[in-house]
Amino acid sequence: MTLPLPMLSTLHAMFPAQSVSTDPAECLVYAYDNSRREAIPEAVVFPAAHEQVVALVRLCREHHVALTARGRGTNTTGASVPVAGGIVASFERMNRILRIDPDNRLAVVEPGVLNADLQAALKPHGFFWAPDPTSAPYCSIAGNIACNAGGPRAVKYGATRDNVLALRAVDGRGEEFRCGKPTTKGATGYDLTRLLVGSEGTLAVITEATLKLTPLASDKRTLRATFVDMAAAAAAVARIMAQPVTPCALEYMDEDALRLARNHAGDSIPEAGAMLIIEVDGETDALPSAVAAISRAAKGDGLIELHAANSESEVTALWAARKALSPALRTLAPNKINEDVVVPVSRVPELIAGLKSISARNSIPIVTFGHAGNGNIHVNLLYRPEDPIQAANAAGCLSAVFDLVFSLDGLLSGEHGIGLAKREFMPRALDSVSLDLMRMIKGQFDPDGILNPGKLLPDVA
Amino acid sequence: MTLPLPMLSTLHAMFPAQSVSTDPAECLVYAYDNSRREAIPEAVVFPAAHEQVVALVRLCREHHVALTARGRGTNTTGASVPVAGGIVASFERMNRILRIDPDNRLAVVEPGVLNADLQAALKPHGFFWAPDPTSAPYCSIAGNIACNAGGPRAVKYGATRDNVLALRAVDGRGEEFRCGKPTTKGATGYDLTRLLVGSEGTLAVITEATLKLTPLASDKRTLRATFVDMAAAAAAVARIMAQPVTPCALEYMDEDALRLARNHAGDSIPEAGAMLIIEVDGETDALPSAVAAISRAAKGDGLIELHAANSESEVTALWAARKALSPALRTLAPNKINEDVVVPVSRVPELIAGLKSISARNSIPIVTFGHAGNGNIHVNLLYRPEDPIQAANAAGCLSAVFDLVFSLDGLLSGEHGIGLAKREFMPRALDSVSLDLMRMIKGQFDPDGILNPGKLLPDVA
Repeated sequence: MTLPLPMLSTLHAMFPAQSVSTDPAECLVYAYDNSRREAIPEAVVFPAAHEQVVALVRLCREHHVALTARGRGTNTTGASVPVAGGIVASFERMNRILRIDPDNRLAVVEPGVLNADLQAALKPHGFFWAPDPTSAPYCSIAGNIACNAGGPRAVKYGATRDNVLALRAVDGRGEEFRCGKPTTKGATGYDLTRLLVGSEGTLAVITEATLKLTPLASDKRTLRATFVDMAAAAAAVARIMAQPVTPCALEYMDEDALRLARNHAGDSIPEAGAMLIIEVDGETDALPSAVAAISRAAKGDGLIELHAANSESEVTALWAARKALSPALRTLAPNKINEDVVVPVSRVPELIAGLKSISARNSIPIVTFGHAGNGNIHVNLLYRPEDPIQAANAAGCLSAVFDLVFSLDGLLSGEHGIGLAKREFMPRALDSVSLDLMRMIKGQFDPDGILNPGKLLPDVA
Repeated sequence: MTLPLPMLSTLHAMFPAQSVSTDPAECLVYAYDNSRREAIPEAVVFPAAHEQVVALVRLCREHHVALTARGRGTNTTGASVPVAGGIVASFERMNRILRIDPDNRLAVVEPGVLNADLQAALKPHGFFWAPDPTSAPYCSIAGNIACNAGGPRAVKYGATRDNVLALRAVDGRGEEFRCGKPTTKGATGYDLTRLLVGSEGTLAVITEATLKLTPLASDKRTLRATFVDMAAAAAAVARIMAQPVTPCALEYMDEDALRLARNHAGDSIPEAGAMLIIEVDGETDALPSAVAAISRAAKGDGLIELHAANSESEVTALWAARKALSPALRTLAPNKINEDVVVPVSRVPELIAGLKSISARNSIPIVTFGHAGNGNIHVNLLYRPEDPIQAANAAGCLSAVFDLVFSLDGLLSGEHGIGLAKREFMPRALDSVSLDLMRMIKGQFDPDGILNPGKLLPDVA
C-alpha cells in the first residue's frame, strides 16, 4: 500500500525535506519497537512544532491514513509498531525542555525529551520526575505518558499517571486542546489529562506535557534481604508495605534471576531462594529510624540475611545486577515472553506459588523479578521455540498465567501496557461494560480510527 | 411535576416502605445542599445495595426521570440540588466499611460512609485516607469522590483523585461496571476510575469504592508565621514549596480572616497582615531538620515572627481558628460568594494583589484564606444584597475574579467543583474542544441525560 499521491505532495509541502521520508530503508527503522514485532510504514515524519501535528492529523484523517505517534520505541508490547501502515510521526526532534519551574514544582517539555535528559536537567534544581523505567536513558517522556510508565520509584512516588499535571494534544479529529493546569489541584470538569495517560496514542497525539516534579531526598540507604524461598520474600514484602515507612524501592528477584545476576555481577550477589532490594530515602537524620522500621518488618520466617550496603560501590553492584536482568534473560531466551502483571501486594505469595506450578506443568522455566512493593511482577517465560514441548505449551502457559492473575484480582499490565501483545486478553481482564465505555471514548476522540489502529482495545468479536 | 404512576408503583415494589418517600416534607430535606440553593425532588430513595441502584437507574431511564445521587449535601456549589426534580438517591444508609486491608494499603467502602468515620476506623491500623475537607465529620466518601474533595493535607498527600484505586458504578444507561483494581499500578486500558472522580454524579452512580490508604506519620510539628502583608506571605509560600521538605499543611489567612479568627479564638491569634499555618510530619527524629528547612524557607522580607507551637493546646487553637473561618464568614455575610480558585503557587502573590484591587473597585470586601501550598485560595466576597452598590457590583466583581484567575493560568475550582454555581463560567475556563470532548463523554455514559442534569457542563450556547 502506498500513500495517495495528493497526500504525499501535501506532506512534502508541509514538512521540510529532511523532516519527511518515504525511503523504505528509513521507514524500516521506524517499523519495530522492543517487542520485536514489525510493520513498515509508508512514510515517517519528524514534527518540530504543535501546528505541524495538527496539520498532519487533519491530513491523515482526510485521506483515511493511519498515524502512529512514536517516542523511541522502547516499549515491549508493540504499541509503536504501525501495523496498519500509513505514517509514523517520530517525535525525536521535538525534544526541548521548555521550562523548569521549581517554585511550582513543574517542568514543561516537548514530547520527545528523553527521560534521563530531563532528570539530569532537574537535578541542579533539587528535583526529579518520578517515573524511572529501566529504559530511562533511551525513552521519551511522551512515550512514558502514552504507556503510563513506572519503575522502581513508583512504590513511593507514583507512576506516570500520578505525575502529569497538564497536556497539549491533538485528537483523531485533528482538533487541538489543552487539558489540566499547572496546579496540583483541580475540580473543574472531567479529567481528560489522566484519560490520555496510558492511552497508547489511540486517543490523541501529545505535543506538550506539564509534569509534576518531586524534591530530591537528601539521602538514601540500600538494604539487601535474602530468603530461603519466594514465599518468605513475598510475605516480607506484605509486612514492609503494611508499616508506615514507605521504601522508595522494593525490588524482588527469584532464585533463577539471582543466578543470572551472579553470572553478570559476580560473587557479591548471594545465592538464595529469593532476594529483596530495599531502599529508603529522606533526610539523613531520619534514615536510621527508617532503616530500623524496615528491618523489623523484613524479619520473619525464612529470612536468611539482612544486609545494609556499606558503600556506594555495593549499592551500584546491587542495582547493576537488577538492571541487567532484562537483557540477560533475553540473551538466554531470545523469544522469551515477558509479562508485567500486577496483583494486590498480599496476593504476591499466591502468584509466585501459582507460577511455580504453571511452570512445572508446562515444562517452561519461569523467572520472576520486579517491583514487589506495587505487586508488579515481571514474569518471564523462558520459552525456546526449537523445543517442541515448549512450543506446544507456550500459548496455554501464558493463558494460564493470566487466569492466575485474574483469579488474584490482578491486571494484565502494571506498567508496560497492552499494545498489540495483550489486546486479545482484554476481554478477560475487564468487564464488558468497561470495554464498551472505552470503545465509545475511542470512537469519539478518533471517529475514523486513524490513531494507532489495532492497539490496546481488542477487535470487536 | 409528579412521577408517572407506573413508575411510582415499581419504585414502591423495588424498595421497602421505609426506603422510599414522596412525602413533600421529607423530600424538602433532600432539596438543598450547602450552596443554599434548593429544588424539591418528587421522591427520595435510600438504596441499601448495588443491585437496587442498577434497577433504580434503569427505571429512571425508562421513564426519562432525573436521578440525583447524594451523599450528605455538604458541597457548596449546588451539585446535589435536584434542579430537574425527579428522584434523589440518598446513600446515607449504604454506609458500611466493607474491608480494611493494611497489607494492601486499601479500604473498600460503601458510598455513604462518612469521611471521619472512615478515618476513625483506620487509625488503629496506622493509616488514614488523605482527603480531609473541613466537613469531614459530615461528608460522605462518595461525595468526596464525586467532587474530588481536597483539604489541607492535599499539599503533601494529594486530593481525592490521587487516592482512589477502583470503583464500582452504574452508568446512565443502567449498565454496571467495575473500573480500576486493588493495586497501586495499572496500565490496562483507559482510566475510567479517574474519569469518574470529580464528575459530580453526571456520568455514573458510585456504589462501592476502593481507597488508597497512607500510613500515619508518627509525629508532627506545627508552626505559625506572621507577615506584614499578604504579598510577603505569598512569597514565603513559593519559597517553602520550592525546597525538598513538603509540609503536610500550608494554610494561609489574610488580615481580615485573622481578625475574624481573633474574635473566635481570642488573643492567642496574632494581629498581622497575613499568617501561615505550616505543619510537617514524619518520624520524630526527622522533625528537627524538617522544621529547620521550613524555617529557612519561611524567612524573608516581611516576616514578623515565626513561632513553633509548644503545646497540643496551642496547635488545637491554631487549627480551630482556621476551621471556624468558613462558618464565621457566613455569619458575617450570609449571602457571601465563596469561591475556591486555584492558581500556580508562584502566581499567588499576583492573585492576592489583583483581588485587593478588584475589592476596592467594587466596594465589596474580599476575605481570603485557604490551601496556599496548592495555590488553592478560598476567595470570599462578603457581599450584602441590602447594599445597593454591592448588589449592583456583585456579578461583575465575581466575573473579574475569574478573569484574574484565568489570566494567571488558574482554574475555577480547586476542590469544591462546579455544580450549578460555576457552570456558566466553564466556557471561559476550558477551551471549546475540551468542553466538546467532555460533552461527548457525558453523552455516552448517560445518553438520556438523566444523571444529575443541569450540573458541571454549561448548556449548549
